[in-house]
Amino acid sequence: MRISIVGAGRVAHHLAQVLSTQHQIVQVLNRNLQKAKSLAALVNAEAIDSFEPLDSNIDLAIIAVSDQSISTVIGQVHYSLPDVLIVHTSGSTNLDVLTQQHSRAGVFYPLQTFSLDREVDWSNTPLFVEAVNKGDLNILTVLANSLSQHVYQYDSAQRLSLHLAAVFACNFSNYCYDMAKQVVDAKQVDFSLLYPLILETAQKATQHDPRLMQTGPAMRGDQNILNMHTSMLADAQQVELQQVYRLLSGQILKRHTAT
Amino acid sequence: MRISIVGAGRVAHHLAQVLSTQHQIVQVLNRNLQKAKSLAALVNAEAIDSFEPLDSNIDLAIIAVSDQSISTVIGQVHYSLPDVLIVHTSGSTNLDVLTQQHSRAGVFYPLQTFSLDREVDWSNTPLFVEAVNKGDLNILTVLANSLSQHVYQYDSAQRLSLHLAAVFACNFSNYCYDMAKQVVDAKQVDFSLLYPLILETAQKATQHDPRLMQTGPAMRGDQNILNMHTSMLADAQQVELQQVYRLLSGQILKRHTAT
Repeated sequence: MRISIVGAGRVAHHLAQVLSTQHQIVQVLNRNLQKAKSLAALVNAEAIDSFEPLDSNIDLAIIAVSDQSISTVIGQVHYSLPDVLIVHTSGSTNLDVLTQQHSRAGVFYPLQTFSLDREVDWSNTPLFVEAVNKGDLNILTVLANSLSQHVYQYDSAQRLSLHLAAVFACNFSNYCYDMAKQVVDAKQVDFSLLYPLILETAQKATQHDPRLMQTGPAMRGDQNILNMHTSMLADAQQVELQQVYRLLSGQILKRHTAT
Repeated sequence: MRISIVGAGRVAHHLAQVLSTQHQIVQVLNRNLQKAKSLAALVNAEAIDSFEPLDSNIDLAIIAVSDQSISTVIGQVHYSLPDVLIVHTSGSTNLDVLTQQHSRAGVFYPLQTFSLDREVDWSNTPLFVEAVNKGDLNILTVLANSLSQHVYQYDSAQRLSLHLAAVFACNFSNYCYDMAKQVVDAKQVDFSLLYPLILETAQKATQHDPRLMQTGPAMRGDQNILNMHTSMLADAQQVELQQVYRLLSGQILKRHTAT
C-alpha cells in the first residue's frame, strides 16, 4: 500500500516505522518541517509542511495528530484528497468527526502507550479498525492484520469505552507510580526497591480479576494504618498525595467491606 | 535454624514454605487449629492453637499476623518465649510495638504482594531487617540472605515510608485496574484487551522516571476529552469512578502544566 502520514508525534513515529517495513510511506506532513523531515528520513518518505502538496496517488492517509486538531486537519486533508481513504488513530474521537467532512473515513486505533525511545511490540498490540464503507473496513482489517495478531472491528462507542478504561489502567496507574516515587524520594529511599512489587501487581491483574487481587490496609479495613498513613502525608508538599490516599482508600474500603 | 511461625495467613504461608526448604519449622500457631494444621502439614511442623505449648527451644519466632493484632500477640509470645528472638513481618508497624514488651525484638519485612495461589520469586524480593541488638540483626541478615539477593538493614522510619509508597505503587495501581475493568464490563468489552497496556506501563515505570512516562488526556491538557470522559462516568453506578477521574486528572494536569 501507498500511505501518507499527517503528524510527526509519538504515534506517527511508531506507526510510520512499522508500516514502512511492509508498505511505502509516501509523504510525512507536519507544520514543523524539521519534525516532518526527521520522521520522513527514517521511513524514506517526502517531508512536507502544508496540505497543498499532498500526493493524491495513495491508498490511505493516516491522521496521527492530537485529538483536538483532528476536526481541523480532516477538512484540509479532505480538500487535497477528496477520494482517498482517510483514518485517524485516536481512541477517544468518534468516527463522526471525520464523516462530517469526508465520506471515505475510518479509524485505525492501536491500544498501547507510546514513548519515543521504546520499541513497540506490534504483534501483541490490539488494533481497532472502523470504517464507513465495507470495502474500506476490509482494507483497514488487512492492513491491521499485517501488523498485529489482535485486530478487532469495533464501533466508536466500544472504542471510546475501551479508551476510557485505558486511562484508568495506564495513565492513572502510572500516576500511582509517580506518587509512590514522590513518597520515597522525600525520605531518600530508593524507588527501584518497588520494581518487583510494581511488576508482580501488573502481572497478577492479567491473570486474575483485580478486584480479587486487592491487598493493603484499606482492603483489610485497618483503620490504624490508614490514619497513620494519612498523617504521614500531612506535609504541605504532599497534600495532593493525601487527597488521593483518602479518596482511593475510602473507595477500596467500601468496595471490599460491602461484599 | 529452628523457627516457629505465629499466624497462618498469606505471608505466614509463603514465608513458612520458603524457610522450610533450608530451616526447620518447629511449630505453626493459629487460633483456628484447622488453619494451623493445613500450613503445618505443608512444612512438616507441629500445629498448635494457643500460646502455652510454644516450644522455647528455637532460634526465632516469626509473628505474621494482621498489623492490628501484633501488639496483643507479642505479649503472649513473650510470656512463652521470654529469651527468644521474635520478629514481625509488617511494613507499617514500628519496631517499638515489640520492644515495649520484649527486648530481643526485630523485623523481617518482605516487600512484595502475596496471594495464596501465586508463587513468590523470593530471590528478587527485597527483604528489610531491623533488630534491637546487633547480634540479632546479624542473625536476621544471614537468614534474609539465604532467601533473597536484596537484603537491606532499614530502620522503622525508612520502612514505614517504603510501605506507604508501596500502597500507592501496588494497592492503588491494582485499584486502577479494578476500575478499568468496571468501565469495560459495563459495555461488555473484554478486559483482557488492556493486558498489553497494563504490562507495558508497569515495565516503563521500572526503566524510566514515571513522571516522564505520563501520557493521556490530562497530561496533554485536552479539556474536550476530559469533559467527555467525565460525562461518560455520570451514571449513578459509576459516581466513584468519576470522583477518581476528576481528582487524578486534575492533579496530573497541574503536575504537567506547572513544569
